[in-house]
Amino acid sequence: MSEADDFLKVARAAREAAAELAPLPRSPKDAALRAVADALVARAKEIVEANALDVAAAREGGTPETMIDRLRLDEKRVDAIAGAVREVADLPDPVGEVVRGSTLPNGLELRQLRVPLGVVGIIYEGRPNVTVDAAALCLKSGNAVLLRGSSSAYRSNTALVQIMQDALAGTEVPSGAVQLVPGTSRESVGHLMRARGLVDVLIPRGGASLINSVVEGSTVPVIETGVGNCHVYVDEDADLGVAMEILVNAKTQRPSVCNAAETFLVHAKVAEAFVPAALARLAAEGVTVHGDERVASYGASGVVVPATEEDFSEEYLSLDIAAAVVDSLEDAVAHIRRYGSAHTDAIVTRSQSAARRFVALVDSAAVAVNASTRFTDGGEFGFGAEIGISTQKLHARGPMGLPELTSTKWVYIGEGHLRTSAGTVIAGG
Amino acid sequence: MSEADDFLKVARAAREAAAELAPLPRSPKDAALRAVADALVARAKEIVEANALDVAAAREGGTPETMIDRLRLDEKRVDAIAGAVREVADLPDPVGEVVRGSTLPNGLELRQLRVPLGVVGIIYEGRPNVTVDAAALCLKSGNAVLLRGSSSAYRSNTALVQIMQDALAGTEVPSGAVQLVPGTSRESVGHLMRARGLVDVLIPRGGASLINSVVEGSTVPVIETGVGNCHVYVDEDADLGVAMEILVNAKTQRPSVCNAAETFLVHAKVAEAFVPAALARLAAEGVTVHGDERVASYGASGVVVPATEEDFSEEYLSLDIAAAVVDSLEDAVAHIRRYGSAHTDAIVTRSQSAARRFVALVDSAAVAVNASTRFTDGGEFGFGAEIGISTQKLHARGPMGLPELTSTKWVYIGEGHLRTSAGTVIAGG
Repeated sequence: MSEADDFLKVARAAREAAAELAPLPRSPKDAALRAVADALVARAKEIVEANALDVAAAREGGTPETMIDRLRLDEKRVDAIAGAVREVADLPDPVGEVVRGSTLPNGLELRQLRVPLGVVGIIYEGRPNVTVDAAALCLKSGNAVLLRGSSSAYRSNTALVQIMQDALAGTEVPSGAVQLVPGTSRESVGHLMRARGLVDVLIPRGGASLINSVVEGSTVPVIETGVGNCHVYVDEDADLGVAMEILVNAKTQRPSVCNAAETFLVHAKVAEAFVPAALARLAAEGVTVHGDERVASYGASGVVVPATEEDFSEEYLSLDIAAAVVDSLEDAVAHIRRYGSAHTDAIVTRSQSAARRFVALVDSAAVAVNASTRFTDGGEFGFGAEIGISTQKLHARGPMGLPELTSTKWVYIGEGHLRTSAGTVIAGG
Repeated sequence: MSEADDFLKVARAAREAAAELAPLPRSPKDAALRAVADALVARAKEIVEANALDVAAAREGGTPETMIDRLRLDEKRVDAIAGAVREVADLPDPVGEVVRGSTLPNGLELRQLRVPLGVVGIIYEGRPNVTVDAAALCLKSGNAVLLRGSSSAYRSNTALVQIMQDALAGTEVPSGAVQLVPGTSRESVGHLMRARGLVDVLIPRGGASLINSVVEGSTVPVIETGVGNCHVYVDEDADLGVAMEILVNAKTQRPSVCNAAETFLVHAKVAEAFVPAALARLAAEGVTVHGDERVASYGASGVVVPATEEDFSEEYLSLDIAAAVVDSLEDAVAHIRRYGSAHTDAIVTRSQSAARRFVALVDSAAVAVNASTRFTDGGEFGFGAEIGISTQKLHARGPMGLPELTSTKWVYIGEGHLRTSAGTVIAGG
């Protein structure tokens, strides 16, 4: 059988499982998730063994140790993965929630209910824990899932999916609801991207190039996630001490994540008071500043690396930050609109009016006022779990929890309601 | 300048206008809509003259009279179009609505606000009233709009858009917020479909082939609308008199619209009691029944046209209906899943359990219980206006009103909130 046939087989199995899974209430879904967690712990040795083969292959291929650490599983990490599954089981079920409802003037009872999306495809990179996290979130929200992880983690993912399927086989959730896309070729991603009608939504999780290739190539609807060129704007009315701490926190607390700051903008009126101190502090924190000429003018020779156009568009994910001086809040907004990724942008200001204007004018998934950009996160927002952070405007924007993995269905209940040109008539009434 | 350059010019103008329009509160938007309505009435003569050229060209090209009637505008119809704009002005503004909000444990004030999508592209067919309706709904929800109507209505649409832009020029809403895609070639649709980054969403309104071509060819996110292969399922526990009226209403009250019924399914246990009467009644209403063998067995020779696979997939939009006998509610659901378009499907039953199962198992935008499928409509649902009926699962499903033309933005407000590995710290606090 060809890889394309293999793909169709698992996609159809997921589709069938989705139809069975969708109407299930919460209890059997939670029981199934707990069975999955138990099985992962019970069969941790198998997982670690399969993972060891992936790790050995990666090492042989010259993969850097930081990447290998992301790939690596041990029994403790498997325990943590199982714990995360139990946490998902404890979350409320979004399915069946009545989003809106009313009795229409003609007596029809109208309800808008949350329902599962159907089959969710997830395309992701190195960390095998995503395999289980994503599957748990999809199952809890009543969706079947088609997983396409990194080829470097294929053995680990195969073991994890097999164990999840085996665990589901003893529950009311159909075991076909969790599927690994077969094969490790580039083409296997293509099958998933063109599976319109079989897959309801694709969520790519990873770097900008992965996400762009999925957005461009997919005929299945896509939710873009996670590219974050986040800004901190220090307003003329900022408390400069607070601004400094927010800037340093947003850049350095965890530089490798999408809600870390990648650019700071300073109002010209406070540039002299803020920029030299910021350059000293950032240098002390090990951060390289890529500044425009005005920023550079506040540093000793060589302290500030000259910023190019690319620097302002860059998601460094490292101890680098771009910087510019702007003449007004409006110029800061224009800079953010031009170079930003519409993830999270922050203003530091004591001015109510400036905060109000910034919030109104910045068109991003999240806007922070006097707070670090690092708070844009499903966990911080109280969602309990997160499948990713959407940077697009359709369907979901910002951190996505369980409700963002659902659609809705309108239900209307009558007693023989007919629509006529003169209004509603009740048949037999 | 090439058509591609012309397109980019109007798309960029719409993008700029969208940024200006988005933060406007309700009052200036309503005032602008009323100015548009006044201008349409005041300049009705220009509109009717431009339209007369479209009508003459269509007639010369051999367009059937029913299509010409859709295209034709007179002063009375222009008045009605202006009246619809005033009704949109009277509707509540979705922008700024706080969808969710809480104060997080660390004191951050978290709000999810409704914001405009940005630039909305609408691709539609013959009726020039859509030009104004769609523009009014987009402006009210704070969006700029790029309109691409039928080439047969190009002169009418050019006049309508010019008058709307002239009217907006005297208001706080930027006149660039309403744009007609220049040109009538097929390529001009292509420019719109590939304008990712300039256009935030495309909404095709029209027949299945238009919608499929947009879905397949667009790199801009699309909301699919309006293809309706709607079913009426007559359950074994149906009140057969009510079932007959619902079936006839759903098929014949307005056969040309997407929420009209295109197939009916009858439980085998009531087939003998229902099908012969239904065949007689439908024949009397001028409806041709395309039935499976079991349906045909209840009619005299030649009364029932044998149904092909295609008949069950067909959106007739005419006085035709497909029909089949099924052995169970589950078989009815399987038929609907296989052939339906997930628009609206109805069950007629007195059984609470059957209604509950049907609602749970049918995965469509709307499910009707003891009511005609014709009620799936923004007006009937009380939305006040409707931009279309989504048959997809992402973003919006079912009738789309003003809130469905928005996205959301998270705002969080702190007082120096920093995220640390030990929890939140307040800078300077």
